[in-house]
Amino acid sequence: MAQQLVDKKDIDFVLWEQFGFEELLKKEEYKEFNKKTCEMIITEARALAIKELLPTLAEGDKEGLKYENGKVIVPECFKRPHQLLLEGEWGCLGVPEEMGGQGAPSFISAFANEYFMAASWAVNSYAAMGNGTAAMIHLYGTPEQKDKYVKKLVSGEWGGTMLLTESNAGSDVGALETTAKKNDDGTYTITGNKIFITNGDHNLCENIVHPVLARIEGAPKGIKGVSLFLVPNYFVNGDGGMGERNDVICTGVEHKHGLKGSATCSMALGSKGKCIGELLGEENKGMRVMFTMVNGARMHTGLQALSYASASYLLAVNYARERIQFRELGHPSDAPPVAIINHPDVRRNLLWMKSYVDGMHSFFHYVEKCGEMANLADSDEDKELYNGQYELLTPIIKSFIADRGYQVCVQGIQVFGGAGYTQDYLVEQYARDCKITSIYEGTSGIQAMDLLGRKLGMKEGKVFTSFLTEIGKTAEQAKKVKGLEDMAESVEALVGRLGEISIKIGKTATSPDTFKVAFAHSLPFLNVMGDIIIAWMLLWRAVVAAPKVGGGASKKDQAFYEGQVKTAEFYMNTVVPTIFGQMDSIEKCSPAAIAIGEDAFGGL
Amino acid sequence: MAQQLVDKKDIDFVLWEQFGFEELLKKEEYKEFNKKTCEMIITEARALAIKELLPTLAEGDKEGLKYENGKVIVPECFKRPHQLLLEGEWGCLGVPEEMGGQGAPSFISAFANEYFMAASWAVNSYAAMGNGTAAMIHLYGTPEQKDKYVKKLVSGEWGGTMLLTESNAGSDVGALETTAKKNDDGTYTITGNKIFITNGDHNLCENIVHPVLARIEGAPKGIKGVSLFLVPNYFVNGDGGMGERNDVICTGVEHKHGLKGSATCSMALGSKGKCIGELLGEENKGMRVMFTMVNGARMHTGLQALSYASASYLLAVNYARERIQFRELGHPSDAPPVAIINHPDVRRNLLWMKSYVDGMHSFFHYVEKCGEMANLADSDEDKELYNGQYELLTPIIKSFIADRGYQVCVQGIQVFGGAGYTQDYLVEQYARDCKITSIYEGTSGIQAMDLLGRKLGMKEGKVFTSFLTEIGKTAEQAKKVKGLEDMAESVEALVGRLGEISIKIGKTATSPDTFKVAFAHSLPFLNVMGDIIIAWMLLWRAVVAAPKVGGGASKKDQAFYEGQVKTAEFYMNTVVPTIFGQMDSIEKCSPAAIAIGEDAFGGL
Repeated sequence: MAQQLVDKKDIDFVLWEQFGFEELLKKEEYKEFNKKTCEMIITEARALAIKELLPTLAEGDKEGLKYENGKVIVPECFKRPHQLLLEGEWGCLGVPEEMGGQGAPSFISAFANEYFMAASWAVNSYAAMGNGTAAMIHLYGTPEQKDKYVKKLVSGEWGGTMLLTESNAGSDVGALETTAKKNDDGTYTITGNKIFITNGDHNLCENIVHPVLARIEGAPKGIKGVSLFLVPNYFVNGDGGMGERNDVICTGVEHKHGLKGSATCSMALGSKGKCIGELLGEENKGMRVMFTMVNGARMHTGLQALSYASASYLLAVNYARERIQFRELGHPSDAPPVAIINHPDVRRNLLWMKSYVDGMHSFFHYVEKCGEMANLADSDEDKELYNGQYELLTPIIKSFIADRGYQVCVQGIQVFGGAGYTQDYLVEQYARDCKITSIYEGTSGIQAMDLLGRKLGMKEGKVFTSFLTEIGKTAEQAKKVKGLEDMAESVEALVGRLGEISIKIGKTATSPDTFKVAFAHSLPFLNVMGDIIIAWMLLWRAVVAAPKVGGGASKKDQAFYEGQVKTAEFYMNTVVPTIFGQMDSIEKCSPAAIAIGEDAFGGL
Repeated sequence: MAQQLVDKKDIDFVLWEQFGFEELLKKEEYKEFNKKTCEMIITEARALAIKELLPTLAEGDKEGLKYENGKVIVPECFKRPHQLLLEGEWGCLGVPEEMGGQGAPSFISAFANEYFMAASWAVNSYAAMGNGTAAMIHLYGTPEQKDKYVKKLVSGEWGGTMLLTESNAGSDVGALETTAKKNDDGTYTITGNKIFITNGDHNLCENIVHPVLARIEGAPKGIKGVSLFLVPNYFVNGDGGMGERNDVICTGVEHKHGLKGSATCSMALGSKGKCIGELLGEENKGMRVMFTMVNGARMHTGLQALSYASASYLLAVNYARERIQFRELGHPSDAPPVAIINHPDVRRNLLWMKSYVDGMHSFFHYVEKCGEMANLADSDEDKELYNGQYELLTPIIKSFIADRGYQVCVQGIQVFGGAGYTQDYLVEQYARDCKITSIYEGTSGIQAMDLLGRKLGMKEGKVFTSFLTEIGKTAEQAKKVKGLEDMAESVEALVGRLGEISIKIGKTATSPDTFKVAFAHSLPFLNVMGDIIIAWMLLWRAVVAAPKVGGGASKKDQAFYEGQVKTAEFYMNTVVPTIFGQMDSIEKCSPAAIAIGEDAFGGL
């Protein structure tokens, strides 16, 4: 039986064999969970995703959303899986019990989410997006606000959003123009228009609570004058029930390249002058609240792209096993046709896809583990190490997985040939759906600025040095494994060279004469780090797998382990040489993109 | 005024300054055309494309095609531009006068087509696709067949198609199962089903003539037993008028990722047992007819992808000039926001796009010129040279421009940010429309096999050697231009290294033990050749432009020439180092993709 969405064997491998997440289950925080319960959760999530969410994916895309008189109507087929997600409390699997969630380890929630996101990110987000709003209220709200909102948001009974973007304030949040005026009762009257609001309106829940970024009259310019307000669709009565309608309304939904089942709304606040919000946290400190959500949002987006890539690869590899076309290369002209997985170029393409899907799968959960260890590690030293790695790597998770994940999805279409261009298969939809991940929650360019401008120099570069040291440890291990010696050397050479170019680009970025030039190479630099991380992760996988090849494992497991070693070998010999080329390019740090005159770009 | 679809200045540059197409206008064949008439034609094509075709592009995508009882109904808005294309005889601009065309130089037709394809490939192809069918009949038909079909196909009064693909015969044409049985009157009764037929049916013309590949009863297996038949929707009477309906019918249209305005049909031949076709050419020699169309189809597809990339770049660069977001990097927090073209990462992205759009623009027309010179050159030696280059480079035109053109379109979305993901702008549609170009008319993988398996070794490698020599000539010229010396050296180094790796991969491809390994690197090899060609073309552009910077040209032209030099500088210093990395990868020629077991790809 062909695997769908995510390779279950690969989840087991990453979870228990590569990263030994069992050590986290020994922590006091997770005492109610053991290996068996974790596996049961993932198995259940997988079944629900495949049986109930996945069948709605193409239909949701085709039907799209209806917008009528301020209301968004989702495809009818979303209602059943939405209800099942709520009944099973899947949306709040990883949310702490004190907030009304299930309190499962967040890494288990992440693995389960891979299935849900690949099956239907839209359906999953309608059920789960209230968690983000709830988390903000949990961290910064008054006791009354927590009582009023948190549990209903966590249960999915009410929906949550994030009203940030305006037509002139996209990446530049500080440019927002929505205003807030304090009323005598302590509430604020909000006036403004927001765009690109995910789940801004929909007919799957009775109330939606909007965290809204706005500027209080007289506040400082830019991000220093931004405050955060809670604006529910319906006010909440003292008994927790719903009161009157607030003056916030959806004014339309975007027609998009993909994610057509997910409502991307434009919202009007106070078009009748009666939009009332409550301050969340302190005045002018809205960005602080936002920033606590940034890393989680980046991780979420990386996981979304990874899920599409994973699902697309599984569709492609299994199509390639079934699709008969052409005789084998070099065979006589009357030889029978074979499955296209036998053709060299198809194999190259599949193995390239697999390299990234496997590598990114490990990369994501490595950083996920760092995030958990930053809280759960025994020593402060370890906490600092893991926290540093988590901070350093989140922009790479976001941007690199979005971009490479998209490329994997596009190659999925290519494996299918003409059939891949039709909507008879999901590969074309996965590519369209995935494209947003390099744009929202901060474009790739923004992530690259964060990496070069903030993260590379954290603690005088010690965080980055630790990162290189961690890779070196895997290379050291690999040297002791028969057959991996050359790969270990390749990875060591990558690390050495990365150290050199990071000094070069770091210096260029901090010189007043050249900093713009450095930032013109920031995204290639981020991608080089990403590609090197993939080499690291594939080597790590090979270290675990190589000793098991030819061992006592089942035939199926043997093939899996062989796949790990061969994938690493492929990547080291075909992709790694190109990474050195990329690093040569960054070292040259050409000023051409900065020096060229604006008119010289042409098109005038 | 911002340029749309294709930069007119760049057309002038490529036409007259870089490649001196004027020399072709001195040939007897083109005596009726001079520089001025050529420019007028392009200007007219541009105006028609922008005013009449372009406004239907998004509407055609949204509305799509209707299929009702065997008939395909195109979007209503297509009718007017279709009629205008026919009235202006635009579809047959480059078709020889003896066939009823306008007899314009085919390079002028290509430049005009850039505008039409970027404005609406679908609308253009409804008007122009009969030319391919006409060309086959002109070359291989009987005098009666020519009389009956050619002029009406060329005028666009009737439509043409190509019924090749079947569900089990895509890339593997020889596997087709449609049969032909000879009748007493010399006609053939055809039975079979075809898929993916562009313009298989539509309501823009009264008759459609289908060239159909089929196998005559008892014919040899594979491509050696394939014959070509003409199957018109309506039989043609002795007086040239339309007679009875033939038994060929459209059974449905594909729902696709893009090109939604272009009818991709499934066709049933002989479902009532009464589909009658006439043989075109000889029995079992159908593939020979097909092969005469292959290079033209590849060039056409390359031009299609180039057009999308060009249009997407112009949209992106002009959006970047207008979209205000963020202060300039390094400026104080209260500095005013600026247009995003000022941000380093946006500049890098735009210049990367421009490198490929400019480079591919030159590359396409260089090969176009080689194709013309193969017929029009004075000496046989030159004809042989140009013919060799044309044969060698057509698979690269097809595959490389399709793949890099698509990447340019995707980056166009990225420049627009969130807006690019909506259907308010054309960039997302260009990406979707472009994706097909790497699939149809032979996938990228098929083109790469052609290059490595057939073209690289043509005439014992002399054609390839001539190609390297031609690049070397441009490098020699560049050495003499102040400021281009380093670039010239870069290109020479590329040529030297390409020579080395081509020997390596060529040897690997011809050894019985390793040939599969070589073909697992054939597409990367094709892409390396493409990337090196871009370096060549950009250097060539710089050779022409550099002496004009600071000269007497207008301010606008000065900016254009500066753009040429800076684009070349950018490419040489940021992309070229990565090409060396790609070549290192190919030289290693890793056997991993061939050696890995099928089960080890995972997903089982």
